[in-house]
Parts: sequence; structure tokens; C-alpha cells
Amino acid sequence: MTKIIAHLGPNGTYSEVASLCYVEYLQEKEGIESQLIAIPSISQTLRTLAQGKADLAIVPVENSIEGTVAITLDTLWELEGLHIKQGITIPIVHNLLSKAPSNSDIKTVYSHPQALAQCQKWLENNLPQAVLIPSNSTTEALHHLSHEPSCGAIASSRAAHLYDLPIKEKNINDYPDNCTRFWVISRDECQYGDYVSLGFSFQANIPGVLVKPLQIFADKQINLTKIESRPTKRSLGEYLFFVDLAGDVSQFAIKSALQELATVTKNLKVLGNYDIMTIDRQELSQF
Amino acid sequence: MTKIIAHLGPNGTYSEVASLCYVEYLQEKEGIESQLIAIPSISQTLRTLAQGKADLAIVPVENSIEGTVAITLDTLWELEGLHIKQGITIPIVHNLLSKAPSNSDIKTVYSHPQALAQCQKWLENNLPQAVLIPSNSTTEALHHLSHEPSCGAIASSRAAHLYDLPIKEKNINDYPDNCTRFWVISRDECQYGDYVSLGFSFQANIPGVLVKPLQIFADKQINLTKIESRPTKRSLGEYLFFVDLAGDVSQFAIKSALQELATVTKNLKVLGNYDIMTIDRQELSQF
Repeated sequence: MTKIIAHLGPNGTYSEVASLCYVEYLQEKEGIESQLIAIPSISQTLRTLAQGKADLAIVPVENSIEGTVAITLDTLWELEGLHIKQGITIPIVHNLLSKAPSNSDIKTVYSHPQALAQCQKWLENNLPQAVLIPSNSTTEALHHLSHEPSCGAIASSRAAHLYDLPIKEKNINDYPDNCTRFWVISRDECQYGDYVSLGFSFQANIPGVLVKPLQIFADKQINLTKIESRPTKRSLGEYLFFVDLAGDVSQFAIKSALQELATVTKNLKVLGNYDIMTIDRQELSQF
Repeated sequence: MTKIIAHLGPNGTYSEVASLCYVEYLQEKEGIESQLIAIPSISQTLRTLAQGKADLAIVPVENSIEGTVAITLDTLWELEGLHIKQGITIPIVHNLLSKAPSNSDIKTVYSHPQALAQCQKWLENNLPQAVLIPSNSTTEALHHLSHEPSCGAIASSRAAHLYDLPIKEKNINDYPDNCTRFWVISRDECQYGDYVSLGFSFQANIPGVLVKPLQIFADKQINLTKIESRPTKRSLGEYLFFVDLAGDVSQFAIKSALQELATVTKNLKVLGNYDIMTIDRQELSQF
């Protein structure tokens, strides 16, 4: 049976590239065919899955430069019955696309604000004359290229190929190790893997509320790989916490930490227990 | 002597509103006159201060809905000799500005992506036909209003007043308790106050590196009010940590925690020790 996979669209974004990697993995490793559907926002992508209109959803969770994608964590916290099935890390390679005869003819550069930020120094050094204009996605930026010859856009090589646009400069990222981690989300029960992601909240903004959960992890020598506090959207200073840790919920230390954590938190959600696959530039170049 | 205060511009943004509150405070409490200069980006605002071209800088650090402003933390970590002098929390009240005869005539709405996100539900319910277009700031969005009668923009009432534009709908935030915390930054030595903000990093991505610092805070019963890991921009999984805690660096528990922390971290930076002033809607309405 063909799996329907919802992902942040439109086609040509890095989310689609991550999804294509996962489609290939599903076919090679499990012999499963799948079909991608592009959804306009992260929140709607996850809601499409929650409503049963897709079998899986693929959303970005963290970029090595920009940090956490807050809306992914907030929406997973809000929706019931969704779990992280798999992590996928892909290298982000930004390219300058343009139909201008030379770089000095480029007066404006369109892209998603994160892509513009990640190429800021390159743009200052190489296109100091260009005005930078944000767009809703790296792909939406491409609409300007066909009718404005003096403009450029920053996007993936997949997007250049898909929309038949010339790549003027390859790999213009300021930080060479730029990569983004995506999560594959499903409605299945939580599985086992090498990483656990948790969210937890507290009854009220009690001072020192963070000490107890941190003590639980520290006492059991559990390796937290990430910790982040997020506002609850009620008022500033009242927080939700999201934690990533190395381990498996079947391990005794983690199982007992979760039991203790449940007694000191208001809500505790195991967002998932999953493995992370890392795609390298070589593997990526086929898309 | 007049103090030069650099802030994220252009005029009419919430950063200018926070700065005007601080200007009034300086005049009333300390009899100090000041002059504001608007700078196009957060990073440049802080660099203007570091280079001695301003006496103070005012930048946003956290919004109750969107979370941390990553670039503020990253730039403070990078630059030497800057300290947080004061926190200012102001309520964010978004308004719909437009010259359209009625709401149903509004075809596009421009604003900063964060402002669009914070009014998303209101826009879906009240202007379902409108296309949302991101701009570099809430003020930049206003440029469209004069020559496009079918468009709207989301901005502060200060911006409406400043650019003489009609407010069509007041207070369209989805979350009524939307507020943003700003930091006043100076080149002065670190002072004393009720809150301490720290940043620290580690030599390498040693698993479990987080346990020790958390244990230090937990053992001394220090109340962490916020914790956040940030990528170091070298590779995903290698992190910097930013922590806010309640207390004063002159207190014994905090002083000794900082000494212990210095022995287990690669770099430890006390970003500041400061008080936070909270502006209410009543006080804000004068600007």
C-alpha cells in the first residue's frame, strides 16, 4: 500500500529534499512505495497527519545555524497521538539562482529569511548592491526570476532543476557545516531508538521548578543532548521544556527517570524514541 | 551629556517603543537626556555600541509567543566587553492599518513574519481572502499602504501615528498576553540586579556535558528561570548554553556556582546582572 507523506512545501524546498531521501529509504529498506504531498505550513503539515489525511509528516526541527524551529515543537506539544518515528539530518547547500547576465546586474535577492541570514556575509561581499527581500519559502522566491531579469534568489539545486533556472553561484553558505534536522512523524505508538525527545510543563511559574527535573537526569547520569525552554503562550516567564536525550525508553535508567519526572511535572509527553539518519552531500547530489 | 542610544529600527517598530520608555525612565530617574538612532539589524545595533558609536543599545531578546531572538544571544556571545544593564518588558499590541474602505476590500496584508504569525488566527477568521506577505519590519510593511489601497499592514499604534495611517482594527493579537522583553546593553562593567544571564560552551561535544553545570545549579538550589541550548554554528549537536537565573552575582551561592562553572566549561560569560522593568498598557498608550 502506498504511504501518503505530507511535508512542508512547496516542491523544491529543503523539506521536500529531506522527504525524497526518506521515500528512497522506505523503498530500499522496507519495499514501501510512497507519495509526497506539499502543505503550505508546518502547523498544517502536522494537522494533516493528525486528521488522518496522511500516513506520515516530515517537518524541520532544528538548523545548525538558526536553532530550533519553534512551531514544530509547539504544534507537537499541542496535538495528541503523534510520535517521532525517525530523524533525518541533511546538509543545507544554498545556491544563487538568477537569469541576470552577471552578478553586478543583480539588484534584488529574494529568499526565505533564514536562507538570506545564512548567506548574509557572502551577499555583503559579493552582491553589496543587492536589496534583500524575504519570501515565504526558498521556492516562492523563484517566481520573481522569470519576469525580473535583475533579480536573484537563494534556493536548493533541486529547486533550480525543478523550475529549470540557472545556478549562478554554488554553495554560498557562510557556514560550511550548515545542516538541518527533520523529523518523520507518525500516528503509530512510540517505538525504540537511540534518541528520546520529551516535553514537560508545570502547574504554575514556581521559582526553581527546573531544579527537580534536572536533578533527576543528573542523578541517573542521563546525557541530555539538548534542552530548551519555550514560553507557554500564557505569559512571559512561564515555560514548557523540551529535552532531547541519548538512550532508549526500554533502558532502566530512562524508564525510571520518566516515572520520577511524571511526579514532578504537570504534563509529560514522550514525543518519540527514534534513530537519526545522516545524509551526506554525495547522497544528496542525486536529488 | 546626551546619551546616544542605538536601537533596532526603523522608527515605529516595537524596539523604538521600548527605547522611548527607557528614554523617559532615564530622564525622570536620572535626569539624563538621550537621543535615539535607528539601526537596520540587531547584529549591527550591538556592533554600533561595541565600536563606541553609541552609549547604549536596545535589542529584543524574547517574545512570549515566538520565544528567543537567537541573533541577540549569538551576537552578545561573540562580541567582547558588552553587558546587559537593564531588562524592559513591554506589551505587544498589534493593529491592522489600512486605507481600504472596508475589511473585505483588503487583498494583501504585509508585516514582519513574527507579527503575521502572532495574528494568524485573527487574520484567518476576519480576512480569509487576504494573502499574507512578509516584510523586514512592521514599519517597512507600511510603505505599501500609500500606493496600494487594497492592502493592509500589521503594526504598532506608534507607527500609525508616526506615518499618519488609519487604524482599522485595534489589538488583533491571537494571544492577549503577548509581550516582548528587551535588553538595554552597555559597555560598562557588569552591575548588580535581580537577574543574571550567563552563556557557556564546552571544548567538544562530550556526551553528558550538560549534567555537571545543571548539577551545580541544582545543588545550590539556584532558580533557573530559563535555559536554552544553541548550536555553536560549527556542527549540529555541539552547543552553547544560555541560562537566566534569579539572583545577584554578589550572593555567595551564585558567586561560588560561577567559580565551579568556570572549571567545567570552556568559556563562561556573565552577560549581565540587571533588573527588569515592566511597562503596562496604560503607560504604553502615551507613545
